[in-house]
Amino acid sequence: MEAVKLKKKDCKIVVAVDESEESMYALSWCLCNLISQTTINKLILLYVKPPPPVYSSLDVAGYIFSGDVIRALETYGNDLVNSVMGRAEDICGKFSSDVNVEKIVSSGDAKDVICKIVNRIKPDTLVMGSHGYGFFKRAFLGSVSDHCAKHVQCPVVIVKHPEKI
Amino acid sequence: MEAVKLKKKDCKIVVAVDESEESMYALSWCLCNLISQTTINKLILLYVKPPPPVYSSLDVAGYIFSGDVIRALETYGNDLVNSVMGRAEDICGKFSSDVNVEKIVSSGDAKDVICKIVNRIKPDTLVMGSHGYGFFKRAFLGSVSDHCAKHVQCPVVIVKHPEKI
Repeated sequence: MEAVKLKKKDCKIVVAVDESEESMYALSWCLCNLISQTTINKLILLYVKPPPPVYSSLDVAGYIFSGDVIRALETYGNDLVNSVMGRAEDICGKFSSDVNVEKIVSSGDAKDVICKIVNRIKPDTLVMGSHGYGFFKRAFLGSVSDHCAKHVQCPVVIVKHPEKI
Repeated sequence: MEAVKLKKKDCKIVVAVDESEESMYALSWCLCNLISQTTINKLILLYVKPPPPVYSSLDVAGYIFSGDVIRALETYGNDLVNSVMGRAEDICGKFSSDVNVEKIVSSGDAKDVICKIVNRIKPDTLVMGSHGYGFFKRAFLGSVSDHCAKHVQCPVVIVKHPEKI
């Protein structure tokens, strides 16, 4: 019977976070709806940075990129990670102190990295925002949540921000 | 703050069920993970029958369809609805007596009907199996869960059967 197999003491949930309001809303939804008092909850916040650009010493217009510019871009990327993770931790703290929060920061193409990490750590559930792009963007670029729903092995929750539907 | 807006007393969840093992597993997952003791839970089991075929009095081979055959097909369809809903209610009963279960049976193209009904009754969450078809079937026919994840307005949980990944 399915019921017996599903009952668990430990509950491990991955929430894919980024700088969007939608991903913070998905995290709030998760804390409201998936965190139970009867389980030991581990929440893993997963942030994927875009892949580092390959800097040529000359850009297309022939200007030389200084080391300062490259370092400034890297600093900006790190600030963004800290800002997103800080905000996500604040939200977790406001909901419950019973949740053990872990953070994973990786880089690459978000859809591939999320699938790879989720299929490796095998959580009970993956939660993510939908990024409900309009028709053209979705049709041509595809969506991270579509891709993950197809390729991860655990249940996936796709949460849309109610004000962005 | 998102947290405050999300706190609710009532929780209305739609589970799309069909004759697959995967949809029964999705229902079990829902009962294990989304039903809380602190909310008033309404679970709506939604079953969509294929659209009724348009019977010609002559089939392609020139045989006449008798009324008996048509009635037999209709009876089979109704038996299937009763069987799926009965099984789903059994699973609900085994998990919790606190859940108020409703049933909706409709007919048509499953992906369109599910979206239409869900966007009308506005549940907190839609839960469904993924029907993880292989590449060709998915690429050419598309998947009901893909379509619903794009077109319904509430959070969608897509559950894969662990033995069918």
